This record gives sequence, C-alpha cells and structure tokens, in this order.
Amino acid sequence: MTRPATSPLDRKLLSALRSLLGPVPVALVLGDSENLPNTDTPVVGTVRIPDRSTLLSMVMNPEMSFGEAYSSGKIEMEGDLVRSLECVTRSSPRVRNWSWRLLSKWFDWAQANTRSGSSRNIQHHYDLSNDFYRLWLDEKMVYTCAYFPTPDASLEEAQEAKLELVCRKLCLRPGETVVEVGCGWGALAIYMAQHYGVRVQAFNISREQIGWAREWSKKAGVASRVEFVEDDYRNVSGQFDVFVSVGMLEHVGRENYPELGRIIHRAIGDTGRGFLHYIGRNRPQPFSVWIRKRIFPGAYAPSLRESIEVLEPHNYSVLDIENLRQHYAKTLEHWLARFDAAFDTVVREHGIDFARMWRLYLAGSIAAFRAGNLQLFQVLFAGSRCQSIPWTREHLYAAVREETDDEQWTRAM
Amino acid sequence: MTRPATSPLDRKLLSALRSLLGPVPVALVLGDSENLPNTDTPVVGTVRIPDRSTLLSMVMNPEMSFGEAYSSGKIEMEGDLVRSLECVTRSSPRVRNWSWRLLSKWFDWAQANTRSGSSRNIQHHYDLSNDFYRLWLDEKMVYTCAYFPTPDASLEEAQEAKLELVCRKLCLRPGETVVEVGCGWGALAIYMAQHYGVRVQAFNISREQIGWAREWSKKAGVASRVEFVEDDYRNVSGQFDVFVSVGMLEHVGRENYPELGRIIHRAIGDTGRGFLHYIGRNRPQPFSVWIRKRIFPGAYAPSLRESIEVLEPHNYSVLDIENLRQHYAKTLEHWLARFDAAFDTVVREHGIDFARMWRLYLAGSIAAFRAGNLQLFQVLFAGSRCQSIPWTREHLYAAVREETDDEQWTRAM
Repeated sequence: MTRPATSPLDRKLLSALRSLLGPVPVALVLGDSENLPNTDTPVVGTVRIPDRSTLLSMVMNPEMSFGEAYSSGKIEMEGDLVRSLECVTRSSPRVRNWSWRLLSKWFDWAQANTRSGSSRNIQHHYDLSNDFYRLWLDEKMVYTCAYFPTPDASLEEAQEAKLELVCRKLCLRPGETVVEVGCGWGALAIYMAQHYGVRVQAFNISREQIGWAREWSKKAGVASRVEFVEDDYRNVSGQFDVFVSVGMLEHVGRENYPELGRIIHRAIGDTGRGFLHYIGRNRPQPFSVWIRKRIFPGAYAPSLRESIEVLEPHNYSVLDIENLRQHYAKTLEHWLARFDAAFDTVVREHGIDFARMWRLYLAGSIAAFRAGNLQLFQVLFAGSRCQSIPWTREHLYAAVREETDDEQWTRAM
Repeated sequence: MTRPATSPLDRKLLSALRSLLGPVPVALVLGDSENLPNTDTPVVGTVRIPDRSTLLSMVMNPEMSFGEAYSSGKIEMEGDLVRSLECVTRSSPRVRNWSWRLLSKWFDWAQANTRSGSSRNIQHHYDLSNDFYRLWLDEKMVYTCAYFPTPDASLEEAQEAKLELVCRKLCLRPGETVVEVGCGWGALAIYMAQHYGVRVQAFNISREQIGWAREWSKKAGVASRVEFVEDDYRNVSGQFDVFVSVGMLEHVGRENYPELGRIIHRAIGDTGRGFLHYIGRNRPQPFSVWIRKRIFPGAYAPSLRESIEVLEPHNYSVLDIENLRQHYAKTLEHWLARFDAAFDTVVREHGIDFARMWRLYLAGSIAAFRAGNLQLFQVLFAGSRCQSIPWTREHLYAAVREETDDEQWTRAM
C-alpha cells in the first residue's frame, strides 16, 4: 500500500502537534510523513492520523480530538497504547487555548452536580448495565482501587484486602452504625456487616447498582443489617458512628464540598470517625475534556488541599492519609486485561466505538496513575470528641484478623 | 486563716470569668467567694486568684493574664493542673477581643520570621542552655514528639523508635544524601548516618544545639558523614536525595511557606523524597498570646491544609500522613515528670518564675494534645519523577530492621 503524499502544510501541522506533546517516544504518522521525537528513547508507539482535518483538530484541541478520533477508529495506535499514553502524560502537555477553555466552562455548567445533574452524571457511567461491568470487574463487583498486599496478588485477593483495610482503618466494632455514601454494588457495606458486625445504611443513586446490591445482601444473609437506599448523599439523615465513602468524592463537585462537610457532621457529629477514599491530584487540575464528555460527566479529582476543605470547617482531625496510586495502576491493569479478553462481547453489545472509547479510558487511567498525574488518597478522620483513636497503625498490618464469623454477629444482633 | 471578704463586683467578675471558661470542672476562688461550675463532673482543680485586679485582667485577656499570673505565683492552682487545663482546652474558650487582637497583631509584626527575626526567635527558646534541657529530655536530647510502639515504652525507647520510624518512612538507602533543616541536637542526623549509611547536611541556627551536635557526631564516629551547618534553612544549597525537617515548620511562619517550598524543590527537585514532622491544627488558629510572648516567639502551627500549601505548587505527591498527637501527649507527660523531678534545680538556675512558666507550658501542651487542640503530623512526600515509592507501608511495622552496623557503612564509604 502506498501512503498518500503529504504537503509542507501537513508536515508543519505534524511539527506543531509534536511541539505540543514534547519529546515523547511516540511517532506521529500522516500519509508518507513521519514525525519522530528528538530523543534517544526507543519509540514505544505510533499514532496513525488519517487526514489533515483530523490532524488539525488534534493540534487545536488534542485532549478532545485524540479521544474522539481514537474511539471512532479514525486514529490507529500501534505499539504499546498504555506506555505511549504514560509518556505523553509524563510530558504533561497542557493545551489551555480558547477552545479548551470554552469546552471546560461548558461542562462546568452543563454537568453541574445539582441533584438532577448528579443523577444524570451517575446514570451516564454506572447504569450502563451490570452485565457490562461483570465482564471485567472482580466477582464482588468492586469498581474502585484495590489494595495489593504484594504486586502479584490476584484482583480478587486485592479487592478483598482493600475491603479489609478500610474496615481496619475505621476500627469497626460490632453493633456500631455506619453510613456509606456512593456504595457501588454494595461490596463494602456487605463486607462490613458480615465481618465486623455493624449495621450499615448505604446510599447510591445508580438504580442498576442498588438493585444488584439488594439481591446480593439477601443472598449473603445480611439484608437485616444492611439497608440500601436509592437516594442522593445529600438526603442522609440520622446519627451514625461512622461515615464512609469510597470513590464518590470525585462525583461531588468542588462547589458542593461545604455541603458535604455539613452532611458528614450532621451524620457523625464530633464523636464519630470517617473515611474518604478518592482519586486526587498533587495540585488542582480538571479531568481532560474528553473524559468529562464521554466517561465521567461532572467529575473532579481534587488536590489533597482542596479535599481537606471538606473536613476543616468541622474541626475534624485527620488521622491517617495513604496514597495508593500504584495500586490503582495495578487494579486498572487487571481491568484492562479482562476488558481486552471480553472485547468482542463488548463490541457485540455496545458497538465498536464504545468498546474503543472504554479501552482508551482504562489505558489512559493506568497511564495517569503510573505517571503520577492522578493519586488515590485514603483519608481517615475523627471528630474532635472521638474517644477511640488507635494508638498506632500496626494493627492494619497484623497477619491474621481477629476473625469473628458471620453467625456470631447474627447471634449477637 | 480567714479569707478576705469579697464584694458583689468581685462575684460578678468571677461569673464573667466562668462564662468565658464554660462549665469546666474547675473552681474559681477569690477571697471568700467560690465560683463552682454548673456541672455534675467532680472538680479537678481550683484556681486561687489573689485580688480583683488579677481577676479583672483574667476577664479582659485570659490567655495572657493566666499565664503571667501563674508564672509569677500570683495565681495558685490546686488539684490536677494538666486535667484542669485539658478541660478548659476542650471547652475551647476563644476570647478574641480588642486587647487580644492588638497583642496578636503586635506579635505578628514584632516576631516576624525574617532572617534576623528567626534568629532571635530560635535563640529565645533553644539557646536557654544545654544543661537546662539535659535535666528533662532523654539521653539523645530529642526535643520533638516521640513514637511509643506501646504506651508503656520508656521515653528513651520511644525516641529511638521515632528516629527509626522516620528513616523507614523515607526508605533511606546507603550512600544517599540527606539535607535536614532544624536539626536540634543532631540525634536524627547522627542516627541516619549510623544506621542507614547516608550522608547528612544538617542546618540549625541555635548555636547551643549545633555545638553539642558536632561534639556528639565526633564521639559517635560519624563526623565525616554528618556536617552540621550553623545557618538558616533559607541558605540550603546543593542537591540531595532526601529533605527532612522534624519540628521546624512551626518556626517558619506561614508567610514563608512559598519560599520553603522553593527551597525544598531546589534541594531535591522532582526526583527526591521529603518528610515534614510538625505540630499542626485541625483548622487555622494561632498559638495563645502567652505562648507567643514567653515560650515560642514567632511560632505558628498550621492546619493540614495550610501546610500542604508548601508542597502543592511543586507537584509533590503526598504519600503518607500520620497524626501522632496521642504520642506527643505521652512524650510531654514524660518531660513534665522529669521536669518536676528537677524542679528545684531549675529554680536554682533560672528562678522560680521561669520554672513555673515552663511547667505551665509543658502542662498546657499535654492538655492541648490530649484535647485535640494540637495535632502532630508526619507528612511523607515524593517528587513527581521519584522512582522509589514503597509499595505498601507494611515495612514500617516489621519487627526486625534489616540491621546493618555502623562499620559496614564506614567500609562502604
């Protein structure tokens, strides 16, 4: 196959795209023109651009155009997609021109996390269908960062270890009451009730997820101790010993942090403990406009400083923060491998564009966590009058949990 | 002894002081008037106020007047001083009247941490004399929060455990270079060189401390690997693998955080690791005006959010934050017990007012850490291109350190 001839303008545009990307070891190809990086690092990937208009749109708005053109199959990536994206992320090109700013402002407005907005935003992602997520999540359907005691642990082991780690950090005691907001398919709520003998009220506005969670809690025999509420976190009422949120802060929106702080304080007051697990940043930066358009409308990953703004007004003591970003990269590697294995099924059910779009999202997320562009923070905090702060963190790493089986809690209730 | 008769005005003033303090279980006594709290909790202490003018000054400016009157012996405290202060701290009366604001503004100005200001501020506290601190610190002269693996560990064990914990958090490797700012009497720098085979450059502007540290490093046989520099942290130059600061951020002053961030970044760039250990707060609040006048001129304990402002502009990843405030209360209990045992010597050397003043400072600090008015944060961070981030924190709690004796490092150098 002969490659179409390119003009000096095409080559100029290729150079312009290169200067946006920096000297990353990724080749840019249009027709018979190839733009190679000015670096000794071996090339890890090649981007094949079909025509001038696609190239032009990538120069104008690379975040959006690359995502769109990759999803639609216009752009082909050869070589290692994840490594290529990682190199680009490390080089951290930030194109903040008028077109980016306009889009960003538009999403700020159109995807705002009002009550109805949150509902639309969550539906877009989490109500795709349980069958879709079953293709590539672990058996407990945990769709948040796992904790790998060692890097070679299986995804199943690592998700179980994460659930256990969260419970240990919170020092749960039998009979305590827990409110969870953004409970996904219910794995943590059910685990807490099964293994720690607590009562959980778990909130979620994804109908697909909450239906699954209710079924599962019945099968697990903890339906009397775990109540799944299909409602917005803003409607949490009542008093609890513990507040927990795993993977929801990203969907709250920064403008709602003061309200989230008040909701937490209303729920656990000055005596309770709380736990926030979320994707964060080293410094403030919005998600890419493509991610906001296609994957996570309304999402924002705060810097650590920004997230502390939830807690500071209520005099909460931050007790422990752990950054698990390497574990999220590993979790996503497992997800992508399973996703790729089920790729044909995804294509059949959702179409090729959707399948490519999700593949890019998963690969790009691995790249962002590896490159340190995204962080995963676990924040443990306690009220100013909390009486039960652990003396050290050593108990988190004790080999054997002081296991008490489900029956024992059931009897105690 | 008959107690002098009090007037209705005195009783009104006692009530006014009570309403500032809240219903804390502390009795207020002036002459034949006793003001008891409106609470069922048994009284833990009694404040004996000698005259109306002292009482009036306590109503006008309780933070300053109590400290001054206690130090001079005008006020006597009966019962449990620490418990009484703890109850008052928990009740958290904040008198922010014109007199407090005027004093606070004055200290902001007069004690600003310019280079010469810092020098004066540090001298005031740390150059009192090494003999004074030897009376009540541990044998290594570590004047920062210890780490008690169990609450009944000795102070000596706990300070050694703290030094080890810091080294483990930083994952030090032989041959690496470390810059320490605010090194006290040098215990950490010497420990790092002895047990982890690193080279340390350690800065301090306290002449008394640095003299002691130099002597000690010679005796310990690590003088060739630990350089003690009598200079301001702002004069750190050169490139290092690791930045560490234990107990200095409190003396930097918030206005200097941007500069501190630049200094850290100049020292370790994007590839290094860093560690900040400091007294902090749940939310912004200055030290009491009495502490600022008598004990720590120019000091400020930041909220966690404020302290992250040092790191955020330079894209540092926060990896681990631990709050050790219970350990600081315990550390201070040891210090106060030793201080009380040496009280007569302190009186002989420094006078009774000084001895009472320091007793109040130590007791008040225990109270503040117990009540959660002060926090102790250890923050581990890494540059955006740091290649050696530990996979988990489990190594911090391994029973036996992979010990390598001093000789081995000496041979390797």
